[in-house]
Order: sequence, then C-alpha cells, then structure tokens
Amino acid sequence: MSTRESTPTAIAPSGCLLCLQQSTEPFPAPDARNETPPATSVTDVRLNTDYARYAGPVVPSGGVVARIIDEVYELCRADTSGTLADYIPELSAVQPDSFGICLATADGSIYGSGDLDAAFTIQSISKPFTYALALADRGVAEVARHIDVEPTGEPFNEISLDPQTQRPRNPMINAGAIAAAGLIKGTDAADRFARIRRSYSRFAGRELTMNDAVYASEARTGFRNRAIGYLLRGANIIDVDPDEAVDRYFRQCSIDVTCRDLAVMAATLANNGVNPLTRERALTGPLVEQVLSVMTTCGMYDAAGDWVTTVGLPAKSGVGGGILAVLPGQIGIAVYSPRLDAHGSSVRGVKACRELSSRLGLHFLHVTRAAHTAIRTAYTVGDAPSRLRRDAEELAVLGEFGDHARIFELHGDLLFSGAESTVRAVEDTPGELEALVLDLREVGDVSPIAVRMLEDLRTELAAAGCPVGLVDPDGKLGQLASSLDPADVHGRVFIDRDAATEWCEQLVLDRHRPAGQECPAALTVDEHPALAAMPDDERERLAKEFETRTIARGELIVPRDSPRCGLFLILDGRVRFTFTDRDNRRHRLITLTPGMSFGETSMLADMRYANDVYAETTVRVAVLPPARFDELTNAAPQLKLALLERLAAAAYAQADAAVRAVAAHGGV
Amino acid sequence: MSTRESTPTAIAPSGCLLCLQQSTEPFPAPDARNETPPATSVTDVRLNTDYARYAGPVVPSGGVVARIIDEVYELCRADTSGTLADYIPELSAVQPDSFGICLATADGSIYGSGDLDAAFTIQSISKPFTYALALADRGVAEVARHIDVEPTGEPFNEISLDPQTQRPRNPMINAGAIAAAGLIKGTDAADRFARIRRSYSRFAGRELTMNDAVYASEARTGFRNRAIGYLLRGANIIDVDPDEAVDRYFRQCSIDVTCRDLAVMAATLANNGVNPLTRERALTGPLVEQVLSVMTTCGMYDAAGDWVTTVGLPAKSGVGGGILAVLPGQIGIAVYSPRLDAHGSSVRGVKACRELSSRLGLHFLHVTRAAHTAIRTAYTVGDAPSRLRRDAEELAVLGEFGDHARIFELHGDLLFSGAESTVRAVEDTPGELEALVLDLREVGDVSPIAVRMLEDLRTELAAAGCPVGLVDPDGKLGQLASSLDPADVHGRVFIDRDAATEWCEQLVLDRHRPAGQECPAALTVDEHPALAAMPDDERERLAKEFETRTIARGELIVPRDSPRCGLFLILDGRVRFTFTDRDNRRHRLITLTPGMSFGETSMLADMRYANDVYAETTVRVAVLPPARFDELTNAAPQLKLALLERLAAAAYAQADAAVRAVAAHGGV
Repeated sequence: MSTRESTPTAIAPSGCLLCLQQSTEPFPAPDARNETPPATSVTDVRLNTDYARYAGPVVPSGGVVARIIDEVYELCRADTSGTLADYIPELSAVQPDSFGICLATADGSIYGSGDLDAAFTIQSISKPFTYALALADRGVAEVARHIDVEPTGEPFNEISLDPQTQRPRNPMINAGAIAAAGLIKGTDAADRFARIRRSYSRFAGRELTMNDAVYASEARTGFRNRAIGYLLRGANIIDVDPDEAVDRYFRQCSIDVTCRDLAVMAATLANNGVNPLTRERALTGPLVEQVLSVMTTCGMYDAAGDWVTTVGLPAKSGVGGGILAVLPGQIGIAVYSPRLDAHGSSVRGVKACRELSSRLGLHFLHVTRAAHTAIRTAYTVGDAPSRLRRDAEELAVLGEFGDHARIFELHGDLLFSGAESTVRAVEDTPGELEALVLDLREVGDVSPIAVRMLEDLRTELAAAGCPVGLVDPDGKLGQLASSLDPADVHGRVFIDRDAATEWCEQLVLDRHRPAGQECPAALTVDEHPALAAMPDDERERLAKEFETRTIARGELIVPRDSPRCGLFLILDGRVRFTFTDRDNRRHRLITLTPGMSFGETSMLADMRYANDVYAETTVRVAVLPPARFDELTNAAPQLKLALLERLAAAAYAQADAAVRAVAAHGGV
Repeated sequence: MSTRESTPTAIAPSGCLLCLQQSTEPFPAPDARNETPPATSVTDVRLNTDYARYAGPVVPSGGVVARIIDEVYELCRADTSGTLADYIPELSAVQPDSFGICLATADGSIYGSGDLDAAFTIQSISKPFTYALALADRGVAEVARHIDVEPTGEPFNEISLDPQTQRPRNPMINAGAIAAAGLIKGTDAADRFARIRRSYSRFAGRELTMNDAVYASEARTGFRNRAIGYLLRGANIIDVDPDEAVDRYFRQCSIDVTCRDLAVMAATLANNGVNPLTRERALTGPLVEQVLSVMTTCGMYDAAGDWVTTVGLPAKSGVGGGILAVLPGQIGIAVYSPRLDAHGSSVRGVKACRELSSRLGLHFLHVTRAAHTAIRTAYTVGDAPSRLRRDAEELAVLGEFGDHARIFELHGDLLFSGAESTVRAVEDTPGELEALVLDLREVGDVSPIAVRMLEDLRTELAAAGCPVGLVDPDGKLGQLASSLDPADVHGRVFIDRDAATEWCEQLVLDRHRPAGQECPAALTVDEHPALAAMPDDERERLAKEFETRTIARGELIVPRDSPRCGLFLILDGRVRFTFTDRDNRRHRLITLTPGMSFGETSMLADMRYANDVYAETTVRVAVLPPARFDELTNAAPQLKLALLERLAAAAYAQADAAVRAVAAHGGV
C-alpha cells in the first residue's frame, strides 16, 4: 500500500508529528513568524497533554469488530473510480490507491483497516472545527449574525449569500467557512491561526501541523476564495482584513491529518466534546449539538439529503480525500481515499460510510427503545424487606401495609422520556402510597428536565403525605446531603437501598403500628424468647450460665474470621452483620434486635465467623461462653436441646428472609 | 376557547368522526363516487380496529409532565403574531386564537394542553405520509427515480425540479408531493385516495375524513399546483393523468385532523411505524427511517437548517396551522395554532416546538451514553456460584479455576455500539476463559449487526475452546432450541442464569477435577458425613433409627407448607429446592447432592417448609422420622446433639452461599 502509511513525517518536513516541543512554533510560513503567546480563554488552554502517549498503535488487530471493518474495506477497495483533486499540484501528487477506514468509539477504542497513518490535508473537514471555535469565541447568537445555518442545495464553491442579509447560507460552504475564520479571536493573525491549530489538536488528541507546500499552493491560486473574502468584507460580514481571514482559511485547510486523527476528532464530537483518549474537553456539549446539527443539514453540500437518508450521520468531507462522520454518543468514523466524486467527496469514503452505516445500523434516526427502560424494576417493601430483622408485630404490620411503600430502581440515562415513564409509573401506582424510594445508582447521565421532573414528583408526593427517599450516593439529582428535617421533601438521601428500605418500613410502621409497640423494648435474660417459655426451674438453671455484656455504639462485637465465641442473646440495642462486596464496599447483611440471637450455628459447627458483627447502637447481650455451652452437653443435654430448638426457629426465619431478598433482587 | 374543540363533527358534516361504519364510504365529492374495495397489499389491510375505543379522552390531567406542557402553552399563547392562511376563504374562517399542544409517547401516553380536539385540515403535513405510502407501494429505489431527497433552501411552493433529471428536489415541496400522490397504487382514482386516507387513519389510530369545503375550494383555485402537475407529466415524472394526481393531492391536504391525531401520527413514526394506541403497523421500520430522514432535511422548507439547530426534531408543518415533530423511539409532538409566519408555519407551533425541545431536552443529536451500558454486570462463577451445592473437592476446584468461567449480564437495546462494548469486554477478559454465559434477559431490541457480532464472538471463542451459553428464554439471538451436541458452538440456550452457571461450573470441573472425582458417589447411611466420623457404637445406634427411601425423578419429596416430616440425609441423586418469584416463575433455590442433608431446621423449630423439594434425579435418602427424632432427646440426648453439630456445619455453609448470591447479584 501507500508508503505514506509508515512515513507520515515525509509530508510534514518541518518537524516530527508526535513531538510536543514543536507546539509553540508551528509557523514556517513567511508572513506569520512572530507568534505571541496565545490569549487565555475557556477554549484556549495550553496543550498540557503528553500527546505522544496516545499516538501509538492503539488499533487492535483481529476480533469481531475488526473483521467487519475489514470486510467493508475489501468491498470498497475494489472501487477505483473517481479522480484526484487537481486544482493545485500537491493534491494530485498523492498515492491514488491510498485507503484507510478508522472507527473510534466514544469511549476510546479504535478499530481500523488500511492506511490509518498516511497524512493528507484536512481541507473542508476543517470547516466544522473552525465554526466550533468561532461559536466558543463569540457565542451562538453573535456567530448567527454573520453566518446562517440553512442548507443551500448547491456545490461547496457557490458563494450563496442570503440576498437580504448577505450572510453566507451556512458555515460548510466556503463563504461561511471564511466568515467563521474571520470570527476567531486572538492577539494577531498568527495567534488566531495558532488557536485554530491547537483546537484541532485537542480534537485529534495529538499535535497537528500545517503542510507548507499545500498552503503555499492554495495561497497562490485561491482567487475565488479571495473574491469571497472581499464580498464578505463589503457586506460587513467580515469586519477584519479579508486577506487575513482568507489566508487563515487556506492555512486551516492545509493542516495535515491522518485517518486515525479524523476518527478521534469525530469520536470527540460523538463524546460530547471530550476527547476520549486524552479526556481533554475540546468543545462544550451545547456547541457540539450546534456543530452536529449544521453538519447534518449542510455537511455534504448538494448531496446532503441523499447522505441523510442513506448514511444518516452528521458528516463532513474534504477534497484531500477524507470523510468524517459522527454517531452522537457512540462512534466517530473516518475514511481516507483521495479519488473524488463529482461533489468533491471521496468515492470510497462515501461508499464505506454507506456500508458501515447500513451494516452496523448506525443511522442516527434508527429507533431504539432505550429511553423506555428507565425503570429497571419496582417492588414493595413487602416483596423485598430491609435487612433489619423485624419482630412478629412489625412483620404483621408490614405484611398488611407493605405495599404502601415502594422502591423503584432506575437505570440508563435519564432524559425526558425516561423521566416521563418513571413519573407516570409512580403516579399510576395502584393503592395508597406512603413512602417511595428512587434508587438512582444504576442511572447514567441525568438531564436537567429529568432532575426537575423528579423534584416535582417528590414535591407532589410529599404534599400528598408520601415522603420520597433517594438512593443516590453520587448526588445525580444534585442533592449531596440528607436533611434531618422530616418535613423537608428533599429530606432523605441514602447510600444504599437497604437503608432506604428500612426508612420506608419505619414510615409504614409509624403510621400503622398499634400504639405502645414503637420499638422493641429492652429485655432481661429471663424475658428473652430463647428462655421465656421454659419451665421456671429450667430457665433459672440456664439463665445463670449466661454473662451479660454492654457494648458501645459502633464497636466491633465479633470480627470476621473469629472462632466460635459464645451464644449471644440480644437484650437491648441493635446488632449489625456486615459483608463486603466485590467492589470492597461494606454493606449490611442484617440487623438483629432485642429478642433475637446469634452465634448458634458457629457454636454447633465450630466454624469461624463469615461476617463482622457490630453494635449499631449501644448493645446489651447475654452470652453463653463456649466452655459452658460445651459443658451443657453432658451436664444438661435436654436443656441444651430445648434451647437449640427455640433458636432454630429464629434461624429458619432468617434463612427465609435471605431467600426472599435473593428472589426480589433478581438473583435468579 | 374555540367552539371547535367540543364539536369536531361540525367541520365534517358527512359523518361522525368516530364512527367506523363510515370507513367504506368516505367520498362525498362528485367525481369519485364509485369506490371499489381496496387492493390488498402489505400496507393495505382493512381497518380492523375499533378506533372508537382509542378516541376517548386519554389525556391525563395534572401531574408532573402535564404541568410542564401547561407552562409552555401559557408562554406561547401570549404570542398572537402571524396571519391566517387566506388563499382560500375556508382557511381564514378558523378561530385565530385556537391553540393546542399535544405530546404522545412512543408507548402510548398522551399529554396535552388547549384545543386538542379542534379539527383543521392537515395540508402539507400530509406530504410525509403520502410519501411513506408511495415508498411502501413502489419501494425506495423506484420512488427515488421520480423524487429526489435534497433540501432546496427554497419556499414550499417553488417548483424546484432538478435541471438534469427534472425530478422534484424532494417530496416535501409541492412538486414532490404531487409526484408522490401520482405513485400511489390502486384500482382507480377513488381507490387510490381511499388508500391514502386509510393509511393516514392507521397512523392516527382513528378513522379520518376529508373536509369537503376545503377540498372544493383548493380544487377550484390551485392553478399553480395544476401547472406543476403538467410540468411533471411533461418530464415523465408522473406517468398517470396529472389532473388526477393533483386532485389526489388536494384531497389529501383537505383531510381533517386534530392536534391529538397529529400527536398520535407523530408517535407512530416515533414508535418505528407501529401505532402505540391500536398496535397496528402503519409503516415498516426502514421506511420510517427514510421518511424521518427526509423530514429532517426538507420538512421545514427554507427554515430547515434553523429548525435542525434549534429544535432538532424531524418535523412537518402545514398551512392549516398544524406542526408535527418526532423524536425517534420516544415522542411525537403536535401543535395547532393557525396564525402563520412568513415560511407558512404556525407561529406558536414553531415557538412551542422550540420550547419543548429545549426544556425537555429532545434535540435528536443530544448525546446520551445509553449505548455504552450494554454490560449490566459481569462476574465469575467463583463470585456467584450456581445453586447446586458442591462438595468440598468441587468447591476447591472452583475456588482455584472459577475465574475461567464468566457471566456477562447485558441490558438495554443491543445496537452496534452496545455489541461492540460487549465483544470488547469479552475479548479483553484477563486470563484464561473456558466457559462464558451471556445473559440476555434484560436486553430489549437486538439489531441484526449485534446478532452477527455475538454469533461471531461465540464462534471465535468456541474455536479457542470456550463454549458460550446464552440465557435467552425469548430467543433474542434467534436461537430457540438448545443443541445437545457439545461440539455445536450454538449449543446451549438456558432459560435462567442459575442453570447456565451450573453448566459453566461443570465445564470448569470437567477440565480441572482430578480423575476419579467425576460425581458424588452414592453413599450408605454409615458413610454419610452426618454419621461417618462418629464412634462405631454411636453410628450403629443412630443408623438404625433411619429409614431408607427411593424417590423417582421429578417427584415431589416435600411440598411447600408441609409440617416437619423428618431429618433427611441424601445418599444418592440430586434434591432440588425451588421457590416462586413475583412473576410466578419457579426457580431453583438450591440443589443438594449425596452427603448433604435437609429438614434439620424444620425439625428443630417445628416449622412448615417454605419451599417445594423435588427429586432432580432418582434420589435415595435416609430419613429420621419426627417421632424417632423427638424420642432421641430423652433416649440419647448426647447422640442427638452430636448429630446436630455435624448438620449445623452444613447449614452454616449454606447460609454463607446464600449471602454470596445476594452480594453477587447486586441485592445490596
């Protein structure tokens, strides 16, 4: 294939493409030697990224995706129709058979076939990027006063000024592109071009340079573009020196890129303006939308309509042989093949984009239902109770009223449509609703309208007596702290669903529990259910084997991996078992309350603790130490069996709760 | 507000709008009385839906979304600029203040404010729908020979024929729309229009009728359109009687719709061609893409570029005062307000669409990351074992090699991008991969390219010695049956993840288990771990208390809710505990194998079984009946305690497995 593939620097003799040190002196042209340091603005940060890191061969070979791209490559390679651009000799001096296809995902994977590293001039593909910088420099409204956004249905070199306002019809025709170049801010001509070049470099993720020979040739022969410059100046569309704006346009068109560069530039647009390799922001989100919109209607000149129907991707082509296409949120595509069709676009480039779009299903109007799956699952606290072990009275109340408290787990990006389906599902919940939890942990981006809609929903439900808790440890709804004021509708934010579920259960219990059952009361050893129902003599005999201990809040009662260390009866306070998940986060396994016990299985089976056991509050326990537990086997075997029978009932209920939790959370 | 709101029939005096019986006689015009039964084709099914069911007041009042629409409504209502269309007297006779906004989701919810049921003529909004029918009748290629798809940058009434081919530039200008009307199939003129009207009705989800007065007036005064008809005939773009094509165009423009109708029509396009209320297909998916593409570039005439940048929704307006806009996959929007701007579009309509798009974040190039979340979670069989209880040897093998078998749970729609990220993650899996499960149950639509990519992945992995199982009960990858040939790469399809996980574990065990440990061997009572380690005399004493039973494969050993019925030691075969989830599907809770036991907690706690217990294979168990179990307390308490200690160790391991399952499946 082309020798350029392996020698990209041959085309840019002024310096190594990958060399960062060149970045402050990119001006070999005689008329702009005195480059001053660039003005500082939001879009004008210094290049602070070690681009060389990203310029290596990141294209994986082999694999499922690479094979599909290879197929498209082979199919299109057979087409040798079209002709090289020849209006300047440099453009017709390229290898006509050069051909590369590169696909970069919005999260930074790169696939490709063919000449990915052959350098060629960006030409008209520069237009959306200079337009983007003009938008960042001047704002959308100010730019709109100089350049319209209407498709013309005419070739790229039509002058197409609006007869009334004299504005160029859009920034993708030469007149609009020259007007955009005239709007770039900077201290002088050199600085203004340097800012353009640096902006392109941010999109590409490496330092781009200008091809002097192409620039010199363009500057020598571009009479029609000079005429456009003067027309624009005459109509006050350009208020700077028209020669300078046109010269800048020639320079931007002469920047060397590779197929890989263009794919990364496209992927940066796909990734909402953030370069997926360097993680640098090249453009803000709303301006990305504006640029992609204009590319959609005007990017392919007089073939825009056909392009939208058959390819369906915002795109831009250049007479250098490149085409760049973007599937917003997903993929950037670049093709390089220098033989052009009658519209001035790469023949193989158009064909490859068509094939990729059709084979990979990339049309941007392709309908998906992603937005309708915002609700991952929904259930009541009756279906999936918290891991707080409830006593019989509480279980009875929750059994009857558990469907008054519901949990909605959401997922995906929350845009209007997903928020709408969520709000509708909540508003349509049958029966009474006394507490609601929205679990947002699996949610991605949340759009401002979705934030507002969920806030409105919370306010509306709170007014109807239904507090809404969020499981939102990352503050996706913008609320980082949990209010302690129970009347605050923005009150409760939890970091895990179990805590939120317990809060829901408590609201239901507070409303429906008979008076006087507010919380499990402290017990004496005699009153503990493990002993309470025994004949008096047996109970007395057994009770004196137990020791009573008090443990401070937050203290570790039994560390994980402890050997058997006693049979524990809980007399007061709350005891929490925790476990650690795969991401090393600690979660509650279960909380036990007075009247419950733990340690029995470990005592019988002589096994180590699988979990840490903490005092959630100040805790009082009665402990039957291992030695006394063992002695009972000989001293009072029936007494021990009677004790174990009572404890087994509790263990049984616990196992049942674990099963319900597994079933409720889809672990099937 | 407008009196039309409550009396839509006043405008269509020929019959009740909701009355299905009118559907076979929609032709009050004198020139087309003899309608014959329609020709049958894919897009030409008889109306078989009881539309009246869907025509009721489905707009919910109040609620979060309705309030947002009310705000936009109030904001736009203040704008009384613009003028009524007056080229025929009927159009200027409407209530100028009429105003309705209606939003229909792709899954059939409808929101709205204002005059939702005022009737007005569809006018140019008919163009995409007749174009759609022409595409369905003739195919995309044949239609393209008559009508191009390029934006013109010119007003709607420009003739805009391509100078070379004489084709109208696009189907949204009058010339293109008349050409489309000329392409509709049918037995005669009446039939051809009847097919158009029925097609629109399918989109609207109710029987639409023509406004005679408007039609008569249009037919009387449409000289320019008649001229276009003859130009098209002269250029052989129309090969039928041009008067008939133009007359059909006048008729289609005179069909009465309401704001609600247009919203449902838009939602049908958003829903990939299926009416979300009636569930009837009005258009196939690929043609929906074509129609929306043309609406994107050409729908708003000379304001198309501005519309795409500021609203960003494929749309169409009509001089009747309607605007219809579509967010593919999500939402259909309609606005009705008859005062028009200079482009011939509703002033409030344009403003309301702009506000809705901006407030609700509906721009179709708005970047979401939905496509990147195809992998819901991924883990190894070591992280989340199956519910088959493994013996110690098996657990040791799985502990060492469990990360050679992985499970990927996918979700969302699987398009190229999601499939790409999945394939990449699998291909990038560290270490050896000997078995893989793809769980597709939470996946929505799967595009053809995603099917191919996952098939390629399966083939590639199978060739590398890694079989891939699918959890795909709905056959989303097109494979409905599980092959029993172990060499078949499309071999295994499971209906639940647990079965797939067990299959994975077995593959790892088959490869890594030391020879001679292939499956748990059958045991005698003496050999069962519960008794094996006891002193000989104790074991003999205890063994004779047990009864041995054989249970046939599939038989219920203990039904759910059974009272305590014995302590069971498994000697041979596999015993399955099942539970029923919220959707009433039965799942395996756990499978126990020889050397394990069950019933101990129920025996001690005297509680009923929470689960059904089945014989997964032929099973042999040793049972200690309740009476003998109880007698042991007095007869041999130490023996009983010794037995219980051994069984407690097993129970402990089981509880631990349940916890791991909860943690692995995100139930935290």
